[in-house]
Amino acid sequence: MLKKYDFDDIDDRYDNFKRSNLGEEIDKLQRIVQRLKIPVLILVDGWESSGKGDIINDLTRELDPRYVKVELFDSRSDVDYLHPSVWRFWQKLPSHEEVVVFDQSFYSQVMNKDERSSDKLKQRTEELLNLEHMLLDDGTIVIKFFLHIKEKTQSKNIEALEDSKFRQFLLSDNDYKQNKNYEEYLEWFGKVLKKTDVPESPWNIINAEDRKLAAKTVLGITLEEITSGIERVTLARERADKSDRKYYIEDTQLDEFDLSKTISDKEYDKELEILQKEAADLVYDCYTKDIAIITAFEGVDAAGKGGAIQRLTRHIDPRSYTIHGIKAPTDLENSYHYLWRFWTKFPKDGDMAIFDRSWYGRVLVERIEGFASESEWERAYDEINHTEKVLTDHGSIVMKFFMYIDEDEQKERFEDRQEEPDKNYKITEDDWRNRSQWDEYIAAYEEMLDRTHTANAPWYIVATNQKKFARIEVLKHFINHIKEHLSELPES
Amino acid sequence: MLKKYDFDDIDDRYDNFKRSNLGEEIDKLQRIVQRLKIPVLILVDGWESSGKGDIINDLTRELDPRYVKVELFDSRSDVDYLHPSVWRFWQKLPSHEEVVVFDQSFYSQVMNKDERSSDKLKQRTEELLNLEHMLLDDGTIVIKFFLHIKEKTQSKNIEALEDSKFRQFLLSDNDYKQNKNYEEYLEWFGKVLKKTDVPESPWNIINAEDRKLAAKTVLGITLEEITSGIERVTLARERADKSDRKYYIEDTQLDEFDLSKTISDKEYDKELEILQKEAADLVYDCYTKDIAIITAFEGVDAAGKGGAIQRLTRHIDPRSYTIHGIKAPTDLENSYHYLWRFWTKFPKDGDMAIFDRSWYGRVLVERIEGFASESEWERAYDEINHTEKVLTDHGSIVMKFFMYIDEDEQKERFEDRQEEPDKNYKITEDDWRNRSQWDEYIAAYEEMLDRTHTANAPWYIVATNQKKFARIEVLKHFINHIKEHLSELPES
Repeated sequence: MLKKYDFDDIDDRYDNFKRSNLGEEIDKLQRIVQRLKIPVLILVDGWESSGKGDIINDLTRELDPRYVKVELFDSRSDVDYLHPSVWRFWQKLPSHEEVVVFDQSFYSQVMNKDERSSDKLKQRTEELLNLEHMLLDDGTIVIKFFLHIKEKTQSKNIEALEDSKFRQFLLSDNDYKQNKNYEEYLEWFGKVLKKTDVPESPWNIINAEDRKLAAKTVLGITLEEITSGIERVTLARERADKSDRKYYIEDTQLDEFDLSKTISDKEYDKELEILQKEAADLVYDCYTKDIAIITAFEGVDAAGKGGAIQRLTRHIDPRSYTIHGIKAPTDLENSYHYLWRFWTKFPKDGDMAIFDRSWYGRVLVERIEGFASESEWERAYDEINHTEKVLTDHGSIVMKFFMYIDEDEQKERFEDRQEEPDKNYKITEDDWRNRSQWDEYIAAYEEMLDRTHTANAPWYIVATNQKKFARIEVLKHFINHIKEHLSELPES
Repeated sequence: MLKKYDFDDIDDRYDNFKRSNLGEEIDKLQRIVQRLKIPVLILVDGWESSGKGDIINDLTRELDPRYVKVELFDSRSDVDYLHPSVWRFWQKLPSHEEVVVFDQSFYSQVMNKDERSSDKLKQRTEELLNLEHMLLDDGTIVIKFFLHIKEKTQSKNIEALEDSKFRQFLLSDNDYKQNKNYEEYLEWFGKVLKKTDVPESPWNIINAEDRKLAAKTVLGITLEEITSGIERVTLARERADKSDRKYYIEDTQLDEFDLSKTISDKEYDKELEILQKEAADLVYDCYTKDIAIITAFEGVDAAGKGGAIQRLTRHIDPRSYTIHGIKAPTDLENSYHYLWRFWTKFPKDGDMAIFDRSWYGRVLVERIEGFASESEWERAYDEINHTEKVLTDHGSIVMKFFMYIDEDEQKERFEDRQEEPDKNYKITEDDWRNRSQWDEYIAAYEEMLDRTHTANAPWYIVATNQKKFARIEVLKHFINHIKEHLSELPES
C-alpha cells in the first residue's frame, strides 16, 4: 500500500486550483455538515518531520475557528494509562457541530515501532478499528491522511528543524529512529495502513515532498470526502428504519424466574453488615491493586435500584466511588455518539463507578420510545459487548444487575409512593405510562439479557419482589464476582 | 480558635436524635435546594486519621446518590501543577442540582505544614478565600467542618489503621508527621481556621473523639446550615435588583478614540507575514517555557474579531492553541457559577486559548439583556479582575482586545453581509436588534475598559474601521505584550 514509488504518482489534480476557492468551498461545506449535524473527524498521520503541523494549519485556517479543534496525541499521560487505550480518543471526539483534527491518528499507536512487537498489538488494532466503525455507523465522516516523504526529504526536514531556534523542540527520538531505519518503517507503515483501510474511510497517501501542493491536495480531498460523506450519512439516515429485523430468543430468562424468594428480618439483620464490610474491604483491595470496578443497575421503575445501591455502598469509602444517575441525555450529550457520555464517566484504575441506569438505555427506553432507530439499537448490542470487552481486557471489573419485580409488585409500590407524602416526588406520569408498556419492556429486557450476558461482563438477575432479599443478593454477587476476579489474577 | 480544651465542649445536641429522623430531614432539604437551584458545597477537613472517610460516608448515605458527589483532593497531580492552584477546585464545584463534598477542603493546601513557610502562603490563602466568597455571592451554600481529635486518639487511630489489612494504605507520612508534632500543628491549624472563617460559612469544629456522635453532629449541623443557607440565598435573590448603583467614568476612552487610522495594501502585504511568523515563534517560545497565553476578543457584531483571530493564528502551530467561540451558555453551563465555563477552558501551561467573546459577556450582553441582575454584573468587575490576577500570578499571559468600529461602519458591514449570499448566514435578527442598543453597549464597554484595564491583564483598544489596519495592530500588540513578558522573566 505504501511504496517507494508512490512518489511518482503525484496527485496534482489540485495544482491549478486557487487556494482561496478551495477555502470558500470548504467553508460552505462546513456550514452544511453543521446544519445536518454530522460530526467530521480528520485523522492526520505520517512520517515524523513530514510537515503535519503546517499542513493541518493550512487546512484548519479555512474552517470556522469556533467549530474546529486540533487535538494532539503524542505520548500517553499518566491519566491515559489509567484507562483503556481508546479512552483518550473518546474524550476528544467531535460533537455533531464540530470538525476535529487528530494529530496523530489513533492508529499511530500501532504504527509506533516500539509497540509493534507487543503481544497487545492485535487487540489494540481491533479496538481502534472497532472505534472507527462505531463512529462511521453513527454517521461521523472520518477522513484519513498519511503524509509520505522520501528518506532524503526527512533528513533535510530534520536538519531544518535542528537549525530553527523556535522549532527544534518539535524533534524527538522518533524522528531520528525513523530516519535511520527508513526501509523498515516503510514496510511496517504499509502493513498497518493496509490493515486499517476501511471502505468508508480509506487512507489517503499524500505525497508531501512538495508541501504546498500537499496542503492543497489535503484540502481538495477533504472537500471530496465531506461531500461523499454527506451523501453516505443522509442516505443511511433515510434507510435507518427500513431494517428487516429477525431475532428470536431461545432461552427466555424472565418468565420462569423465581420471584418468590425472601429472607427473614432476622437473617437480613445478621448478614447485612457483615456483607457490607466485606464489600468495602474488597473495594479497598481493588483500589490498592489499581483495578477499576464498573457496575450497572437496570430494572423497571420502583424495582429498588436506588435502595440496593445505597445498601451496597454503605461501608465503602465514599472517596473511592461515584454513583451516576443516568437520565435522558442533555442536548450536549446528544451531540455525541451515545456511548460518549459513558466514556467520560468510566472510572480510572482503582476507582469504582456505579451506574443507576446505564448504556443499556439504548436497547431499553430508547428502543421502546423510538429515540433510537431500529438499526441504531439493533447494532448497539454488539457495540455494548465490544465496549465492555475493551474495559475488561484493560483489567477492569464489569458487572451488571437486573433488578426484577413483577407487575403486581410494581403496582403496589407505585400506590405506596403516591400515598406517602415523602415519597410522592418519586412518582410521575411517566412512570404510569411506562407501566402500560410492561410487555414491551420485558421483551426488551429478555433480548438484552440474551445478547449481552457475557463471561467477561455478566448479568446478575436479582429477584426483587422482597427488597431485603434483593439487597443481600446484590451484595453476594458483588462480593463473589470481585473475589473470583482477584483469584484469577496472575501472581505479581 | 482551635484549642485543646475544645474537647470539653462536646456538642451533644444531636445525641438523642434518631439517625433515621435526621436522614429523612436531610433528604427533604436536598430536594428543596435542588428545586430552588441552590448548589451545596461541604468542605470536610481535620486531622489525619480523624475519621473523615467514615463521617463523610455517614453523611452522604442519607442523600440522594444521584445528586451527591465526594471529591477527593489529596496531592496535586501533574495536570494540576500546570494550572493555578485553584483550578482543580473549579473543575469539581457543585452544579445547582448537586451537593458536593470536598475531602479535604481547599484550605488544606495552606494547612499543610510544608506550604506554610512558602512565600506564596499569603497569596494562596487570599485566592482560596476569594473563591469561597465568589461562591457565596453566587448563592452557593458552603458548609465547613474541621474534625478535631486528641493527640492520643490520633495515635490510636493510626495504630488501628496499621493493623488493618485493607485500610493501611490510607496512612501517609502526613499522619505520622502530624502526630509527632501535634502541638505545633494544633497552633497552626488554629491560625488557618481563624483566617479562613467567614460569616456566612464559619468553621464547625467537630469533636471527633466519639465518631458516632461526631457523625450525627455533622448531619445535624448540615441540616441547620442548609436551612439558614436557603434563607440567605432566597433573600439575596429577592434583593438582587434593588442595588443602588452609582458609577461615574471619569476618563471615557471611546468617544475620542481615533478610528480613522488605515494602512495601505502595500504596507499590509509587506508587514503581515513577517508579523505572523514572529507571533508564531513567540508562541513556540512560550510553549518551551511552559507559559500559558490567554487572549480575549470583544467588540460589537461585525467588528472583525474572527478575521483578526484568523490572521493572528496564521502561522501558529494549530496543535498549540484552541479558539473558543463563546455563545449563550447552555443549560449545563448555566447550572454553575458563570466563570465555571471559562475555568474549564483555561489552557494548561504552554498552551494558548483564544476567546472569541469571553467572560466579559457578564458585563456586556448579560448586563444589557438583563440575564444577570445588577448586583451580579456589578460585582463581576472585581471577580474578573481577581480571576485574571490569579492567572497572571500563576505566570500566565493574559491580554484582551477590544475591536472598535463606529455605528456607520457596522451598518455598512451588516448590509454587505445581507447582500452577499455566502456571508448571509452571518447576519440574524439579533444583530439588528443589538444595534438598536448601540449607546447602551458603548456605555457598558466604557465601564468595562475603565474598571478592568489592569497592568497585569491590559485591554488593547483596536481601531477596526479598516480591517487591515486592525489585523496588523492586533499582531503588534500581541507580539509586544509577549516580548515584554518574556523580557521580565527572571533568568532561569
